[in-house]
Amino acid sequence: MFLLDEAEHWLDRGATDTPDTRLAGLTQINAFFENSTRTLLSFEIAGKRLGADVVNMHAAQSSVKKGETLIDTAMTLNAMRADVIVIRHMASGAVRLIADKVDCPVLNAGDGRHEHPTQALLDMLTIRRRRGSVAGQKVVICGDILHSRVARSDILALTALAAEVRVCAPSTLMPKGIERMFVTPFTDFDEAIEDADVVMMLRVQNERMAGGYIPSTREYRMRYGLTAERLKRAKPGALVMHPGPMNRGVEIDSEVADGPQSAITEQVAMGVAVRMACLDVLTRRARKLEGWA
Amino acid sequence: MFLLDEAEHWLDRGATDTPDTRLAGLTQINAFFENSTRTLLSFEIAGKRLGADVVNMHAAQSSVKKGETLIDTAMTLNAMRADVIVIRHMASGAVRLIADKVDCPVLNAGDGRHEHPTQALLDMLTIRRRRGSVAGQKVVICGDILHSRVARSDILALTALAAEVRVCAPSTLMPKGIERMFVTPFTDFDEAIEDADVVMMLRVQNERMAGGYIPSTREYRMRYGLTAERLKRAKPGALVMHPGPMNRGVEIDSEVADGPQSAITEQVAMGVAVRMACLDVLTRRARKLEGWA
Amino acid sequence: MFLLDEAEHWLDRGATDTPDTRLAGLTQINAFFENSTRTLLSFEIAGKRLGADVVNMHAAQSSVKKGETLIDTAMTLNAMRADVIVIRHMASGAVRLIADKVDCPVLNAGDGRHEHPTQALLDMLTIRRRRGSVAGQKVVICGDILHSRVARSDILALTALAAEVRVCAPSTLMPKGIERMFVTPFTDFDEAIEDADVVMMLRVQNERMAGGYIPSTREYRMRYGLTAERLKRAKPGALVMHPGPMNRGVEIDSEVADGPQSAITEQVAMGVAVRMACLDVLTRRARKLEGWA
Repeated sequence: MFLLDEAEHWLDRGATDTPDTRLAGLTQINAFFENSTRTLLSFEIAGKRLGADVVNMHAAQSSVKKGETLIDTAMTLNAMRADVIVIRHMASGAVRLIADKVDCPVLNAGDGRHEHPTQALLDMLTIRRRRGSVAGQKVVICGDILHSRVARSDILALTALAAEVRVCAPSTLMPKGIERMFVTPFTDFDEAIEDADVVMMLRVQNERMAGGYIPSTREYRMRYGLTAERLKRAKPGALVMHPGPMNRGVEIDSEVADGPQSAITEQVAMGVAVRMACLDVLTRRARKLEGWA
Repeated sequence: MFLLDEAEHWLDRGATDTPDTRLAGLTQINAFFENSTRTLLSFEIAGKRLGADVVNMHAAQSSVKKGETLIDTAMTLNAMRADVIVIRHMASGAVRLIADKVDCPVLNAGDGRHEHPTQALLDMLTIRRRRGSVAGQKVVICGDILHSRVARSDILALTALAAEVRVCAPSTLMPKGIERMFVTPFTDFDEAIEDADVVMMLRVQNERMAGGYIPSTREYRMRYGLTAERLKRAKPGALVMHPGPMNRGVEIDSEVADGPQSAITEQVAMGVAVRMACLDVLTRRARKLEGWA
Repeated sequence: MFLLDEAEHWLDRGATDTPDTRLAGLTQINAFFENSTRTLLSFEIAGKRLGADVVNMHAAQSSVKKGETLIDTAMTLNAMRADVIVIRHMASGAVRLIADKVDCPVLNAGDGRHEHPTQALLDMLTIRRRRGSVAGQKVVICGDILHSRVARSDILALTALAAEVRVCAPSTLMPKGIERMFVTPFTDFDEAIEDADVVMMLRVQNERMAGGYIPSTREYRMRYGLTAERLKRAKPGALVMHPGPMNRGVEIDSEVADGPQSAITEQVAMGVAVRMACLDVLTRRARKLEGWA
């Protein structure tokens, strides 16, 4: 909640305000071992808006290819005196491994199937601003729950903030024992969406379709796509969310994505604010702010 | 003309002048869906010299690959609160499509066969500085007129500024009805260059040669290459221009490219100044400068 | 020695010091024609910490691919008014070629088998700080001496600073006539390491193994790898160095790389400081500092 409040602070700043360069002189390294244009852009803009020296390390052209271990890469970044490292990695747990080896704060920008915490924060901020509060909201998350770090992180955040969470997926894409995360599982989207305040759609990964988890694009849309028709089952004015990039006409119809209930582009805006808040707060200790030593 | 005057202002600044950071706190996103090292570098340097937070979005690693629509990409950039977006795209009209969807100014850094307006501006500035004026100059543009956005944008700028324009190309690379753009078409370069004040050479695209539009490198040079011999047919001291990168020994000989009449590296320098002027002027409204609201 | 003293100045600066932006308003172009994440990051961080406008030109997406000559690329960067250009190139001598064509200082970030001067400087700084002085130290360099620009630059620096240098390599990877560089060649590592103060290991290039220069990873480690056992032959407390990225278990064992005698991550830290010193000193003339005109 503290981070959400901090993020609100950055939301209302405009182009004519004096730039706030509180991270001037600090080095932020974005080490993306997995491509993600949106998330990288969002972190890069967030850091630059705060005056940090932002450098991107692209894995595709990195020593990693030369067989360097992840830990050696981490120690190299550390030795260059990074003040904060933002990491995206395809392996669950890679971020933790690196964080253990460096002296500076590490931000997880998504690791494998594991977590994507800033996505969860921006989603919470979006819900809080549009619905007044997260607590008590009926939220349905629909899509590939099994492989989605977004789902995982959102579930943790939503339940922590006392939302009522339902998850919906084809049975092949639903993790066993998901109830232990304090959510109610559904395989029928029409049932799951009934009376929901917030509908969060997940991106269909094409790899899944090739892997046989999902029958066909057309059938997926019919059973798990958010159509205008289906949205009517949710509460009137229910919020529509998607982490992007969208497969229009598959998990979500354009009519809905571009409709009045959609908060999808707002989520992107929240993303920059949330990341600014994280970068600011995580470097307070390094900046020796009072109370953060 | 106004933009050219503005660009002149940036030309005489040196390394020891106090940096002018009028775009401090503004975010410039360079969204290049098509590779172009030179143009990207030029826009990046221009933005950074003005103090903007410049971020590059490389299409090769972008969501575009994940099947996101161009409009969704545009809306994402917009939601991150870009203050100016610079776009390069392989499809004619893509820039317009994006500009219609975002709240901030959009700069076209080249779209398909359509336009490349900052190239035209830098060419006009080069001519004006070297020849005193654009009006009344006899300018010949030689090369692949059909596929060239540089040619198209230069023709529009030159005719607007009252130059006398001739275009020269093999008939397979000459657009039908080009006369309607107020230019005189030629297929014989020796005729076209006669008495010219300015000779603008276009880059031969290797793709064209593979496509059968052009016979062979050797024959192309013989008929449409700018050799020292051929340059003598133009006015004494006629200006030689090329947008780069050059195919030396094909459309232009090294003797000419590196000779005293060449303005080719000067064009590059003008490019940065012109882009600084565009970035400055286009963000005046966002910066709430008087008279620009 | 002067550069090493300058570099020391940057080493003790921390995150809470007021940023020193002495390169504000200057443009640093990193033109890397060969990938090198570490060296690029190091130069980028160094430039940004000094307040320079840093732009990266990636060769993979550059005009070079379109067949532009190296000299044209150099002239283009020059025309954009770079204040310092950092170049990495796979061809020996390419950096010199470019330096001859531009008006600004050029920093060699590694060219072919030729040189890698900032690596040598950072190695000298590391030795000086850990051993008090370079002069008189017994240094052994072990690995692919033949193809290594690091070895070449280190030999030049070490002998200039009066260290006693031994080189060790399989005979296929030892340059003929290496004695003329004032070093003593060895093919037996156990002999070469005897009584050494500093042990510098070189990276095994996988390409070499494919090329038949090296028998097998396993045999290489047995004969030329730095194991804990072998390190005991050097002086007690001898310094262990490696330019990175390491092939753990091939040219160096993890026990040694992560052990108390290792200065490997320290080398990375020295790298940023040395590059800051180079960028600062090389731009003093452009900044019209007294005594540097």
